[in-house]
Amino acid sequence: MKVITGGVTAAKGFEAAGVEASIKYKNRKDMALIYSQKPCVLAGTFTSNVVKAAPVLWDKKVVEESAFGQAVIVNAGIANACTGKEGYEYCKKTALRGSKALGIPEESVLVASTGVIGMQLPIDRIEAGIDKLAGAKADTIEAGTQAAEAIMTTDTHSKQAAVEIEIGGVTVTLGGMSKGSGMIHPNMCTMLAFVTTDAVISKDVLTKIVKEDVTDTFNMISVDGDTSTNDTLLVMANGMAGNEEIKEGTPEFEAFKEAVHYINETLAKMMAGDGEGATALIEAKVIGAAAKEDARKLSKSVVSSSLTKAAVYGHDANFGRMICALGYSGVSFDPDKIELFFESKAGRIQVFKDGVSTNYDEEEASRILAQPEVRILADMKMGSEEATAWGCDLTYDYVKINADYRS
Amino acid sequence: MKVITGGVTAAKGFEAAGVEASIKYKNRKDMALIYSQKPCVLAGTFTSNVVKAAPVLWDKKVVEESAFGQAVIVNAGIANACTGKEGYEYCKKTALRGSKALGIPEESVLVASTGVIGMQLPIDRIEAGIDKLAGAKADTIEAGTQAAEAIMTTDTHSKQAAVEIEIGGVTVTLGGMSKGSGMIHPNMCTMLAFVTTDAVISKDVLTKIVKEDVTDTFNMISVDGDTSTNDTLLVMANGMAGNEEIKEGTPEFEAFKEAVHYINETLAKMMAGDGEGATALIEAKVIGAAAKEDARKLSKSVVSSSLTKAAVYGHDANFGRMICALGYSGVSFDPDKIELFFESKAGRIQVFKDGVSTNYDEEEASRILAQPEVRILADMKMGSEEATAWGCDLTYDYVKINADYRS
Repeated sequence: MKVITGGVTAAKGFEAAGVEASIKYKNRKDMALIYSQKPCVLAGTFTSNVVKAAPVLWDKKVVEESAFGQAVIVNAGIANACTGKEGYEYCKKTALRGSKALGIPEESVLVASTGVIGMQLPIDRIEAGIDKLAGAKADTIEAGTQAAEAIMTTDTHSKQAAVEIEIGGVTVTLGGMSKGSGMIHPNMCTMLAFVTTDAVISKDVLTKIVKEDVTDTFNMISVDGDTSTNDTLLVMANGMAGNEEIKEGTPEFEAFKEAVHYINETLAKMMAGDGEGATALIEAKVIGAAAKEDARKLSKSVVSSSLTKAAVYGHDANFGRMICALGYSGVSFDPDKIELFFESKAGRIQVFKDGVSTNYDEEEASRILAQPEVRILADMKMGSEEATAWGCDLTYDYVKINADYRS
Repeated sequence: MKVITGGVTAAKGFEAAGVEASIKYKNRKDMALIYSQKPCVLAGTFTSNVVKAAPVLWDKKVVEESAFGQAVIVNAGIANACTGKEGYEYCKKTALRGSKALGIPEESVLVASTGVIGMQLPIDRIEAGIDKLAGAKADTIEAGTQAAEAIMTTDTHSKQAAVEIEIGGVTVTLGGMSKGSGMIHPNMCTMLAFVTTDAVISKDVLTKIVKEDVTDTFNMISVDGDTSTNDTLLVMANGMAGNEEIKEGTPEFEAFKEAVHYINETLAKMMAGDGEGATALIEAKVIGAAAKEDARKLSKSVVSSSLTKAAVYGHDANFGRMICALGYSGVSFDPDKIELFFESKAGRIQVFKDGVSTNYDEEEASRILAQPEVRILADMKMGSEEATAWGCDLTYDYVKINADYRS
């Protein structure tokens, strides 16, 4: 697997664009297009929230019922959630206009929205934006970057990743982009992620890989514990690499799976580290758990704890808060056996052992926690399962952004 | 039921004290005593966290195994959690010194601690504090207030409540005190609450009433989603009112239950409203739910949502965040049927109906949300069950307090 530059246009036959459409923001790109020159096999995962935004309902239908997908039209600024029948009609109109502008079937057009809940989309501006996107689309890396920038809300930077792998002597490419700034518990109502590949692969196999992988990637990040109405991950495979079809149980399957995991984990970590107001990416790694699901619960509990997040912001080695978060995760363990460490580029320190503080050096611990990437490592001493979750610190700016959001 | 002035010393035969012992804080009261002139029937509920502080382990043992309880010794500043065997030994030493100073059996002395996790108690200062407490104790309202002040950590004010009821022509009194500033998801590692009564009641009946009532009171508040290692509610009944024993299934049982509920709910709401950094008490009331447990989950999800809390801080009627929080609560419902209202002393406004915004007046909604007590009312239209949860807004000061806590 080779990491390369680029995003959704890295794979063969994929084009993209990002344009200004004045949906809600002014003077910035706020609509994006992903387009494939050939029809794509689709896989998708969507929010578990009972309240699903209109574009989520639309995309679920396309992923489940359409023979293929060929384009995604995204807007930032308004989430098109809690918008009733009118909101769903706007998804249809978006797909219809995309169909005309791109010359592809209406039911192959996916849509995604991110932004404020409860407002209706200005459909005239959406439609004008689609025409602009169709005119601007290109298969360049720059076009992919324009799209990645256009889907941002409170993100401070765009998020892309791409890799190449060899499948039977043929180069297969995968690329992706996402916006945060959170995920299974996201934030400004929406994490969106889009992954494209030119691999030849069936829908069933692609779906299986994606559903399994999100459990350890997108579903393991948290910014604020709020699960959005719009969360969407779409994966599109157009087969243009010309590889022999990827079948389950083969080395090619494993290689492709690893590549999907790299893209998903990279995008997920970028979102966690760019959570609203964040100054640090927090990684909670749990080892020595009795079961995989225990390890996931434990690590996610630590990374979701407001008090842990505030302590990291303050570079305060207040380890009791992490032990406390492990304790209320719902997983049973012996507090006297577990060990806790802090790790970063500045070093590694053990802070908890045999049920008590190790009497570590507070200044050294604080230096370790002052880095932009910080790992909290817990060894549960109960087995050999492990999991990692990602989040960010809790800062004044998180409160500022969210107390002021709509104004 | 008559609301009266006072707290833990309101009921007959209860004494209290609050003194300076320099456990961690300087120049303020930080140790408290509750003492009953006669042995008490005990009931208690404790944190569900797997990591239980030493005083929680001690008190569970006393509540479950001792014939009666007669005193509670509390310190603020250090939680005595994650302190291993040494921490538990300090509980024993505290009880032993209390036993000597008060002339009561060691196994009738309960202990409670609140503050930083992972530090050991300075047992010499604890023991000196106990002697001071024993010398200072009195049955006055003022003594109760001193105790309520001594158990505070980041609380901005002390929390007390008291009521009188008639049981067969005899006046029975209940009083309580608590500190926050949070609860089943509390904060600075500890919500502590103590309720005293002179009622004649058996341990079984008292326990039944308390366990049922916490489900709708203390377990329905949240400040930050972090469940402490120290959460403790202790209820002590010394029988000195001389009423006929309260039996289940009688009108007296119902009257006593109502009085317990009043004290618990009042103390719980005080804690929610005084959550760290809070400027407002948020009440989330859910009506029309299909089941009681659904109503509890839904209301607690709204009140625990960081985005809802930040919106209230910003007086921003961003109702989509509350709809979103209902949606990820784990309870199923039809988003197109539910209705959402904001209520406060400044008025009442409906913001959501038929799956969309009501196009309410933003300025009016903002005025309603600018009050110190704000209610978010959701009608699920699925049945007749209801529940209420309490929390507070998320502010800069919450971050400030928790990023700086130990320094």
